[in-house]
Amino acid sequence: MSRNVRISVDAMGGDHGPTVVIPGAAMLRERYPDSSFVFFGDRAQIEPVLSRHAELKAVSEVAHTDVAVAMDAKPSQALRQGRRTSSMWLALEAVRDGRCDFAVSAGNTGALMAMSKFCLKMMPGIERPAIAAIWPTLRGESIVLDVGATIGATPAQLVDFAVMGGAMARALFGLERPTVGLLNVGVEEVKGLEYVRVAGKILREGDFPLDYHGFVEGDDIGKGTVDVVVTEGFSGNIALKTAEGTARQVSTYLRAALKRSLLSRLGFLLASGALKTVSEKMNPNRANGGVFLGLDGIVIKSHGGADAEGVAAAISVGRDMAINELQAKIAAGIELARAMDGSVADDMAGAAVAT
Amino acid sequence: MSRNVRISVDAMGGDHGPTVVIPGAAMLRERYPDSSFVFFGDRAQIEPVLSRHAELKAVSEVAHTDVAVAMDAKPSQALRQGRRTSSMWLALEAVRDGRCDFAVSAGNTGALMAMSKFCLKMMPGIERPAIAAIWPTLRGESIVLDVGATIGATPAQLVDFAVMGGAMARALFGLERPTVGLLNVGVEEVKGLEYVRVAGKILREGDFPLDYHGFVEGDDIGKGTVDVVVTEGFSGNIALKTAEGTARQVSTYLRAALKRSLLSRLGFLLASGALKTVSEKMNPNRANGGVFLGLDGIVIKSHGGADAEGVAAAISVGRDMAINELQAKIAAGIELARAMDGSVADDMAGAAVAT
Repeated sequence: MSRNVRISVDAMGGDHGPTVVIPGAAMLRERYPDSSFVFFGDRAQIEPVLSRHAELKAVSEVAHTDVAVAMDAKPSQALRQGRRTSSMWLALEAVRDGRCDFAVSAGNTGALMAMSKFCLKMMPGIERPAIAAIWPTLRGESIVLDVGATIGATPAQLVDFAVMGGAMARALFGLERPTVGLLNVGVEEVKGLEYVRVAGKILREGDFPLDYHGFVEGDDIGKGTVDVVVTEGFSGNIALKTAEGTARQVSTYLRAALKRSLLSRLGFLLASGALKTVSEKMNPNRANGGVFLGLDGIVIKSHGGADAEGVAAAISVGRDMAINELQAKIAAGIELARAMDGSVADDMAGAAVAT
Repeated sequence: MSRNVRISVDAMGGDHGPTVVIPGAAMLRERYPDSSFVFFGDRAQIEPVLSRHAELKAVSEVAHTDVAVAMDAKPSQALRQGRRTSSMWLALEAVRDGRCDFAVSAGNTGALMAMSKFCLKMMPGIERPAIAAIWPTLRGESIVLDVGATIGATPAQLVDFAVMGGAMARALFGLERPTVGLLNVGVEEVKGLEYVRVAGKILREGDFPLDYHGFVEGDDIGKGTVDVVVTEGFSGNIALKTAEGTARQVSTYLRAALKRSLLSRLGFLLASGALKTVSEKMNPNRANGGVFLGLDGIVIKSHGGADAEGVAAAISVGRDMAINELQAKIAAGIELARAMDGSVADDMAGAAVAT
């Protein structure tokens, strides 16, 4: 399936702004020549970089604005100072008004989420957005959500996350019925976290376009036990950051150890191809692109420190989402969830009130 | 400082029982000849192994029981079937009655915690136990708690965890004022998790024998940003399991990559010493020994799959705790917390009610 995809890009986001965002877009266009772009931001910074990528330039439009959201701006501050004027806001507006298929920003997550909620609004029937991360696993990739949009959840919200994550897995991995697990702890005594249990019951008994696996634990994420791991944003964010930290820790140990002796230096040289493969597998750039789910429009958050390849990966995720009709898939799943009758609906209503 | 330490061992716990537990004890005794042991369990299984370790045998006593708690027993089931009779219970009873300085079991965590609460009871003034993990970091080791004793916490309980973790860091690392951080998420918008914020305020304003650092995120754990990371048991357990999973994932990638070509195999051979160092650093055996805090007696949980070296590491942690008077340190800290007056005490009381 191929159609022209029009991409709205906040050129000013991230640690490096246009100098990385535009080369990333160029890589994407090379891979998918059916892409076109609108870059929002400072024309004086954008055009010199763009002019070094003639083919990209031919399919791009630049929309100038002086206002950029700072990487350390608080969401409320960003909204106050950048609403209707900043490159981030304008990039979202282009999606809201149907001029682009999705928006990409490497700007700060809190500001981007706040602006997305304000500009795009929630999808009908969904209470809370979620940020979905693409997580490298031993089986390939899994989706983990929510990794930090909000804290806490009712059972009904966890079910919505499962439906949204399932829709994303269908769009991204092409799976008919992705497997979904609820993140929980393994200590028998305390397994009964009420809202997670109720969400599990609903997912098991309801008729959703996914395969409910049951509870999973923290170490199941990296194993790739399920395609979609669902949790609320506090534990999801801690899991994500802890995994990033551990991967970095191991590679720091590795680098230090391999430089310690002449023999290990030589070994390192000979094995460097293999070691490169590993670091690529764990490279956050490779699986770059946090997807904001539940909004009335597709928004992709690229990592602030990502390089051009990382930006290309993030845009590519958005492209998959747009082409494979993520939004329609989510809407259909949510409709199913809301249409459930009998005991499952009672569970959802009861639990939502109880929480 | 040296004194005879008498160690109560559940010889039947773990995946391998006496065949690993006893060699582990022998390793410990070699390192610390001032240790003596009571092994609880099946004499017919214990004595053949013990007789292969003459020096250990000379300082050991075997207390026979037929009853062992199964590794997959539910806590309630373990209590019903093993109370007053199982090797796990008897090992705890020896601590309760003052016959031993601390207990070690590699049995299942839920059962061990349930029995510990039942047999030893909580320390006066403490509402909830916590399981503290010793976490390898880039700076050395840190303590993370709670990694799964209970779910959720009030601000006052988080403060208790901070005090208990601080006492453990003083006993284990010999630090006068260990740094303590509260685990939180970095997204500005949602940073306001109320009970964590209130706990932070109490720790900042109160006069505790620790250095309150502020909030930390998941990736700060592996960096070793603070000596003690405090969180409630759900997110703590997920962080721990996620880190274990990620470390395993990286080493799986590494092994696979290094076997792929002749050159990388050769490199692997030359660098194998260095790679061994790394896998030792990340080896859960090395930092083995979850410490149950808040009980009226010292209990160490050794990993069920630990080898003899892992068991020795767990016993060694218990030995440090006993010699450095963990319990007295916790009691003093808790007393300080309870004696606080004015606004901090109001915060604690108010917040505890509100949660």
